[in-house]
Amino acid sequence: MAGLPVCVLGLGLIGGSVLRAVAAKGRETFGFNRSFLGARAARDDGFTATTDLDEALSWADRHGALIVLAVPMPAVAPLLEQVSLAAPRCPMTDVISVKGPVLEAVRAAGLLDRYVGGHPMAGTAHSGWTAGTADLFAGAPWVVSVDDHVDPVVWTAVMELAMDCGSVVVPARSDEHDAAAASISHLPHIFAEVMALEAGEVPLAFALAAGSFRDGTRVAATAPDLVRAMCEANAEELLPALDRALRVLERTRDSLQRHRSVAELVEAGHGARVRFESFGRPDIDNVVVGEGRWREALAAAGRAGGVIRSALPGPDSR
Amino acid sequence: MAGLPVCVLGLGLIGGSVLRAVAAKGRETFGFNRSFLGARAARDDGFTATTDLDEALSWADRHGALIVLAVPMPAVAPLLEQVSLAAPRCPMTDVISVKGPVLEAVRAAGLLDRYVGGHPMAGTAHSGWTAGTADLFAGAPWVVSVDDHVDPVVWTAVMELAMDCGSVVVPARSDEHDAAAASISHLPHIFAEVMALEAGEVPLAFALAAGSFRDGTRVAATAPDLVRAMCEANAEELLPALDRALRVLERTRDSLQRHRSVAELVEAGHGARVRFESFGRPDIDNVVVGEGRWREALAAAGRAGGVIRSALPGPDSR
Repeated sequence: MAGLPVCVLGLGLIGGSVLRAVAAKGRETFGFNRSFLGARAARDDGFTATTDLDEALSWADRHGALIVLAVPMPAVAPLLEQVSLAAPRCPMTDVISVKGPVLEAVRAAGLLDRYVGGHPMAGTAHSGWTAGTADLFAGAPWVVSVDDHVDPVVWTAVMELAMDCGSVVVPARSDEHDAAAASISHLPHIFAEVMALEAGEVPLAFALAAGSFRDGTRVAATAPDLVRAMCEANAEELLPALDRALRVLERTRDSLQRHRSVAELVEAGHGARVRFESFGRPDIDNVVVGEGRWREALAAAGRAGGVIRSALPGPDSR
Repeated sequence: MAGLPVCVLGLGLIGGSVLRAVAAKGRETFGFNRSFLGARAARDDGFTATTDLDEALSWADRHGALIVLAVPMPAVAPLLEQVSLAAPRCPMTDVISVKGPVLEAVRAAGLLDRYVGGHPMAGTAHSGWTAGTADLFAGAPWVVSVDDHVDPVVWTAVMELAMDCGSVVVPARSDEHDAAAASISHLPHIFAEVMALEAGEVPLAFALAAGSFRDGTRVAATAPDLVRAMCEANAEELLPALDRALRVLERTRDSLQRHRSVAELVEAGHGARVRFESFGRPDIDNVVVGEGRWREALAAAGRAGGVIRSALPGPDSR
């Protein structure tokens, strides 16, 4: 049996791919896009899509659909205001790359009890409806929040959405997600920009640049607006990560100057990278959603690298 | 006609690959390796190789061979002392990844007029004679120094060595080479170690790590001794590069805290990376080695991205 109807708000790369993926699973879908061109492109591909937010939210309300927020962070708060008026009982998730600020906006809109955050960790260098595909998320990790407030029924609906998109689910708290994203994505983006900038000012640097430079600066080729959006939205967690990195760099600089040695950093960094390479991905299959300390159990399992590959039993299956 | 005989001192990955490559071009070769196992492995593969430095240098002296220093930086000075006693008239180059410190050691040994530095920019994660291959340098840039002192006859011999190894030649001053290496290789190694270390201390980070982290920290998997050797040997240039990077990072941190913006860095970094992607590799074919301001002309052409793909005319062809 197909899962809940899905109403996707925002038909860019991620939202458009979600719409395609769940439609391919036989679910009823409805799409909203602010710009006419995106909505028309979706309709041209045979989907129901509108530029009329009220129309989309009325449909969601009538069908008890799962609402998927797939808009940039600055558009979230005004959209939530409309959701709270027109479809306040619908379960809701999002696909935005930062989780704490969305959670706060949802809380401010009074929709917390219907909301479970999400973050599919997939993407391409392109954007917009036409860049999307039904298999964009195949095999990719999809973070589903297990914050203290989350409801087991909504959580299960979001887990099923991720699985219908072909993803494996990584359960995580919103705050831990954002701290991890700062260190594995936002800091690497900042570092890549610094390396590209530095090399750009040194004569001969581009002429000699090889693999370590090409790899290390690859993400500096990302569109500046996207890099800014993710780094700035996660400033709360990126700042302490930057501070820790600055302290390590300053200590390394002093050690290089005084003792001609970078041993401490290089041995610790190499050790961490080796641990990363051997980091396992065990199945999470021993938690029942809604039973006992299920949120804490899932957060701990996600932290240890665990992923959900087959739907966990939950409220529906009891 | 095959080029000069070649005497390679040090039969590790790089030296061993040079020996194989030039032997395949029909040159006479002789190899020296301090450790018995390396020398025996070369002999087992059909090459003439010894653990007796005097024997190797006498052969080089008798044959007027091009001597190739292919030992780690700390072994250079004692080796040069022996060269100055046993084969002081031989032309000489090296394949060490830092150029300024080698140049200073050569000057101290009184061998400057016979020496032109080199740096083939190729390698693998493995080391030792058995890791080498005759085609290790195929298509790779090989930096050949054009410092003020260099002699056109020795320069041409080193250019021909690089070409017999299948490389394209990038002419560069030793100081500019080291500054560029700091910014495109040593700083990226330091940054990769910092990113790996930082992520290793954040719960959930490895669980969520994807492409940007994997690419950005790839070189942190390099053996710590190799990373230390190259960064520490180039401390003179790595320190100012680190200082510049620290200033940019601190400014970015302040801008993120005060204005929630990383715009300045991200736009400049992206611009530099885009320039790198469109950086051309024009042929250098309009310089005669030894004529006019040939060293300055080659340094300028190398700085602009130029490479030598066919041997330049020089002292032999006039």
